[in-house]
Amino acid sequence: MRMTRKVKQILSHYESDNPGTKEKLARLLMHGKLGGSGKLVILPVDQGFEHGPARSFAPNAAGYDPHYHFKLAIDAGLSGYAAPIGMLEAGADTFAGQVPLILKVNSANSLNPKSQQPNQAVTSVVQDALRLGCVAIGLTLYPGSGDCYDMMEEARELAITAKEAGLAVIMWSYPRGEDISKQGETAMDVCAYACHIATLLGAHIIKVKPPTDFLEQAEAKKVYEAENIKISTLAERIAHVKQCAFDGKRIVIFSGGGTKGEDALFDEIRGIRDGGGNGSIIGRNTFQRPREEALKMLQDITDIYLGKK
Amino acid sequence: MRMTRKVKQILSHYESDNPGTKEKLARLLMHGKLGGSGKLVILPVDQGFEHGPARSFAPNAAGYDPHYHFKLAIDAGLSGYAAPIGMLEAGADTFAGQVPLILKVNSANSLNPKSQQPNQAVTSVVQDALRLGCVAIGLTLYPGSGDCYDMMEEARELAITAKEAGLAVIMWSYPRGEDISKQGETAMDVCAYACHIATLLGAHIIKVKPPTDFLEQAEAKKVYEAENIKISTLAERIAHVKQCAFDGKRIVIFSGGGTKGEDALFDEIRGIRDGGGNGSIIGRNTFQRPREEALKMLQDITDIYLGKK
Amino acid sequence: MRMTRKVKQILSHYESDNPGTKEKLARLLMHGKLGGSGKLVILPVDQGFEHGPARSFAPNAAGYDPHYHFKLAIDAGLSGYAAPIGMLEAGADTFAGQVPLILKVNSANSLNPKSQQPNQAVTSVVQDALRLGCVAIGLTLYPGSGDCYDMMEEARELAITAKEAGLAVIMWSYPRGEDISKQGETAMDVCAYACHIATLLGAHIIKVKPPTDFLEQAEAKKVYEAENIKISTLAERIAHVKQCAFDGKRIVIFSGGGTKGEDALFDEIRGIRDGGGNGSIIGRNTFQRPREEALKMLQDITDIYLGKK
Amino acid sequence: MRMTRKVKQILSHYESDNPGTKEKLARLLMHGKLGGSGKLVILPVDQGFEHGPARSFAPNAAGYDPHYHFKLAIDAGLSGYAAPIGMLEAGADTFAGQVPLILKVNSANSLNPKSQQPNQAVTSVVQDALRLGCVAIGLTLYPGSGDCYDMMEEARELAITAKEAGLAVIMWSYPRGEDISKQGETAMDVCAYACHIATLLGAHIIKVKPPTDFLEQAEAKKVYEAENIKISTLAERIAHVKQCAFDGKRIVIFSGGGTKGEDALFDEIRGIRDGGGNGSIIGRNTFQRPREEALKMLQDITDIYLGKK
Amino acid sequence: MRMTRKVKQILSHYESDNPGTKEKLARLLMHGKLGGSGKLVILPVDQGFEHGPARSFAPNAAGYDPHYHFKLAIDAGLSGYAAPIGMLEAGADTFAGQVPLILKVNSANSLNPKSQQPNQAVTSVVQDALRLGCVAIGLTLYPGSGDCYDMMEEARELAITAKEAGLAVIMWSYPRGEDISKQGETAMDVCAYACHIATLLGAHIIKVKPPTDFLEQAEAKKVYEAENIKISTLAERIAHVKQCAFDGKRIVIFSGGGTKGEDALFDEIRGIRDGGGNGSIIGRNTFQRPREEALKMLQDITDIYLGKK
Repeated sequence: MRMTRKVKQILSHYESDNPGTKEKLARLLMHGKLGGSGKLVILPVDQGFEHGPARSFAPNAAGYDPHYHFKLAIDAGLSGYAAPIGMLEAGADTFAGQVPLILKVNSANSLNPKSQQPNQAVTSVVQDALRLGCVAIGLTLYPGSGDCYDMMEEARELAITAKEAGLAVIMWSYPRGEDISKQGETAMDVCAYACHIATLLGAHIIKVKPPTDFLEQAEAKKVYEAENIKISTLAERIAHVKQCAFDGKRIVIFSGGGTKGEDALFDEIRGIRDGGGNGSIIGRNTFQRPREEALKMLQDITDIYLGKK
Repeated sequence: MRMTRKVKQILSHYESDNPGTKEKLARLLMHGKLGGSGKLVILPVDQGFEHGPARSFAPNAAGYDPHYHFKLAIDAGLSGYAAPIGMLEAGADTFAGQVPLILKVNSANSLNPKSQQPNQAVTSVVQDALRLGCVAIGLTLYPGSGDCYDMMEEARELAITAKEAGLAVIMWSYPRGEDISKQGETAMDVCAYACHIATLLGAHIIKVKPPTDFLEQAEAKKVYEAENIKISTLAERIAHVKQCAFDGKRIVIFSGGGTKGEDALFDEIRGIRDGGGNGSIIGRNTFQRPREEALKMLQDITDIYLGKK
Repeated sequence: MRMTRKVKQILSHYESDNPGTKEKLARLLMHGKLGGSGKLVILPVDQGFEHGPARSFAPNAAGYDPHYHFKLAIDAGLSGYAAPIGMLEAGADTFAGQVPLILKVNSANSLNPKSQQPNQAVTSVVQDALRLGCVAIGLTLYPGSGDCYDMMEEARELAITAKEAGLAVIMWSYPRGEDISKQGETAMDVCAYACHIATLLGAHIIKVKPPTDFLEQAEAKKVYEAENIKISTLAERIAHVKQCAFDGKRIVIFSGGGTKGEDALFDEIRGIRDGGGNGSIIGRNTFQRPREEALKMLQDITDIYLGKK
Repeated sequence: MRMTRKVKQILSHYESDNPGTKEKLARLLMHGKLGGSGKLVILPVDQGFEHGPARSFAPNAAGYDPHYHFKLAIDAGLSGYAAPIGMLEAGADTFAGQVPLILKVNSANSLNPKSQQPNQAVTSVVQDALRLGCVAIGLTLYPGSGDCYDMMEEARELAITAKEAGLAVIMWSYPRGEDISKQGETAMDVCAYACHIATLLGAHIIKVKPPTDFLEQAEAKKVYEAENIKISTLAERIAHVKQCAFDGKRIVIFSGGGTKGEDALFDEIRGIRDGGGNGSIIGRNTFQRPREEALKMLQDITDIYLGKK
Repeated sequence: MRMTRKVKQILSHYESDNPGTKEKLARLLMHGKLGGSGKLVILPVDQGFEHGPARSFAPNAAGYDPHYHFKLAIDAGLSGYAAPIGMLEAGADTFAGQVPLILKVNSANSLNPKSQQPNQAVTSVVQDALRLGCVAIGLTLYPGSGDCYDMMEEARELAITAKEAGLAVIMWSYPRGEDISKQGETAMDVCAYACHIATLLGAHIIKVKPPTDFLEQAEAKKVYEAENIKISTLAERIAHVKQCAFDGKRIVIFSGGGTKGEDALFDEIRGIRDGGGNGSIIGRNTFQRPREEALKMLQDITDIYLGKK
């Protein structure tokens, strides 16, 4: 498939990156059913690390096998597949060249003591991504954590090495910490801020949660009200997040969150699409359903992003 | 002995490893009386570090001599012998080539203050394993410790270096920490989670404790009950742990725990075998008995794993 | 334009720097409308990191686009443009060679817990400055923070590398910490001390806040009174800060602070000029106004520094 | 002097070390009046660091001069001389080749706050030992300290480098910490454990304190009683410590402790000898006496170790 | 000037140093009016860092200019000039070759929170000393600080690098910390101990404060009394400090302390001289006076050290 004008335009915004990195972004943007559309749907399978294996895979036990997820991403024509090192090592050879791979280089787990600052362990490095044939590394930031400056400095080191190696860098930017309320973690101002921080750190692709219309920080709230920033619909909120990503010049994708009904999910996808979001990272909502149902749902999501539904 | 179909099948799951590492896994899997069966029995002697020399060796004082354990592992036809650096240095030359060696690169001790987070000191490195002719490094993780992310990052560095050097990586994954109850340390959900974390970190072989049917984490408990996961017999629990190791694609072995009666021990071995576990790491139950008794018991264990008992 | 006597004199004070660094200082001092005058006006855009995107850019939404700030700095004939890595990456290619760039290598954010010591994350390095064609790195110090010695050691490493690479080093020296009162952060003695610390660390250009006539430290207050140091007007205070920068041998520029009325701002600029200050770093007061207003104001500021107003 | 059968036997236990390290152990074992006997008496002079200069040297002021101790060790025909870097630098050239030198690479001091975990500063490195012509490095561990795992990791790095450089490694293993009672620091079980830990870390020579018959740890006490381990005489306790050093395969020497009467000291030496200990590190008891007295006493100690007294 | 017998004798005590380092010590000892006498007077200008610029320079405002201090040291014929990196960079080229320079590589400041352990930031490195043409690095230790072991390890790294590069190492050893009383910071036993620690760390030149006859540590006090160590006059106390510097084999110089009357100062200098001290580091007492007064006073001090007064 020839590169589309849309993808060329997106790539043009990554003006300081080397050709190697642009080639990797192009591979993500040109792969699968959404190839060429400027939209991405990525399958992430790190829930086993975050929540444990049974909570992740028991609802659809085929998912205990790493090959299942490679196949699901390939058969659904997704844009890419993201997972921690062990998970990728277990299938990277069998499925080499069939789907763009993203190495999730840091991970948290729910056995960790609650008394600790939110943080993640860096469990793999750029050299691992290269030997496994990945197009990108993915890493999580927790803006608001007392360990966040350390996380940012780890992100800096990983991003510099990845860029030098011609890889792309994806940042999951999830605010949490002692001064952020539970509701604040998905507040409009906080999500927009978290997205902006990741762009300032030099991320190529940013993943945030779809924001609510709640406003967390008093100083920010004043400005949102004074400047009459539109945030009442999801599409408006997505548009504002994209604006905070260098006026739309960076790719922003959104998490699917916990398992939910199809209608709620599809509405969310439409909101992301209508607000100009670049797509979804969607895990539990797919691999926890039977394979046929998941493929059907991913086809529907693809169709929504392509404007067919 | 020619490589068996069983071993070839196991090796095929380590698809991203280099030939050097696969050769080391093959040496473990093809060595000793269980060679070719896909089962492993490994002798670990790090109890002197963990509990002190008298508690470890006074019951069978021949064990104070490092050569004793090399000989025991060789004469019993075990798959391998694992110990800290000083212990291996004291016999690696005399017994070179006679039994696969595993360098245990981190260790804890019971003089350490109880007020500290559970952790271990990294007491040797991959270069030591190479100069001593080892096939693998072994290291302990404490998921649930406030220091666990640091331990994981140490594990990452050690594993990367070991894999590049063509060695195998064995992780002891023992949950403990301020949010985990004593009973929870061997709970079904927690052991399965600990095993899964080690696989996600890229371990080739994982060692966990045989789980009980207790369920520790409320969120996990809901899923175990809702999905009706079978955990009432030891064999079922072992099978579930193996499932959590990439649907059985990773080698999982189980610790022998404290000294116990032979019948109890043999029943446990049968449970591990029947659940599809890959074997045992068994220390105190062997070297704390007189040599002849220990050899007899290890023969019985071997026979159970070979299905003869 | 030929180098002026004024600029030659300023450069002569950087006697231990290599020609590469002097060439970079010359580029800053000879660029734009103030070129050759010994004065600098620099546009900094790191407020999105410090306060979030909406608080920074919503008042003039064109500013969400990184290109806007490059263009503003170029069209206003400013001396340089300073921003974090992501912001510079988004325009360094398009505007290469049109305005001296300063890579702001560390940043704080207002999501960070208040319980932490004041600090910043180092988000980029000297190699980034080189690949983006920058003339200098910029970094913030918080004298008074419990983490300040660590910040100074980071500054040391960055400054050594920058100087070896022929770049200039700009330090933002902002006192804050548990033993410094709010009023003390802009106190005469504290600002002068903060400036002096940065010169002792080897900064080429120091940025501090315009001080008030408050005196914070009791021991210092005694000396200011005993020695009758003149600090009643802003010009006197600026002159004292310059004196504390090696008797004026280092370039010192001043921050513009929060949005304020034009008259107040122009009075401040005149005070800086009359006291011998080398110029301003002025962000929110410009990019939060409509472009034409901002250009007009920057022309006025330029004129004040050139003595035309 | 030709190497004795006794020394050859001792060296044979260091089977994994390179010839360089064995040559250094041989130099210690073949030097001085005890050369060839398998016994060692080493003069350590780090008390100035631990307790201050006046407490160390005022009783015999000649000891303020570093040359004094070199001469004392040489004239007494001791096996070696151990001291911190500054002390060795002050005499290594004058006395080059006359006595085996041991660089004590870490040190504590009694000005350090009591609130800190027991620890030592690493004040020199292996490269220093090489340039000063030393045969070994010496370092202290505090098993039981909350910083002990860090100390062990420092020890690992130092030991690896020393072994690669063909030097020997001596560990002073002194238990202390918040969970160890004062009496427990010299308890039988704790000293034996501390010795065993050092052997497991790969020390060639271990120095511990002569243990009392007190038992500190409840779990250990049960085993000592159940197994009827003989610990009522000093010789029995020394024999048990040696047993915990790989069944006697590692050289273990004992500290002389505070100044005491000659009879008490000689009795202790006889206990060490009769239990199979390899000798003494004896500092204050020698250099705090007038030189002639010290030489006489060291001759007596030598004679005891040689079985002449 | 030919090297004197006195200097040759002093150099002979640095027997393990390379010729490069001895040449640097010789340059210090042979420079200026005291050249060849074995005495040193060094001008240190780091008070701006420690106490702020106004407290340091307002009493004699010419001192704001870094060139002032170079000239003062040169015109007074002093042995050397010591300052932090920024201060030296500002004059090292103009005055190259006219006075031995000492780079003070770490610094504290009085804005730092009182709640922190006493410490200093390492603000420059050995490579800086080399590029600026220095003969030595200088660094401060705080024995008694909870961070002191870290400071010692930084000192180790800096000293190793400096010695390899043929530079000399000067340590300022200033006891302070939670277990040391205010009076104890200049107590006889504590100052002697601090001096001894620096010699054991391998310092070539040690700077301590002139001690009082107070005794801080109970254990030390017993020894001072039992051994009847003479400490009633300053000369006796200086002699004891020198004794604690390897029986006088290391160069020890003394700080001038706060501004004081000339008579008191000259008496102190005579005490240092009579006790065998090697000289003074004297800052505020000189540069805070008018230049002519300071030159006169420095001439007087020189004359005292030369025995003319």
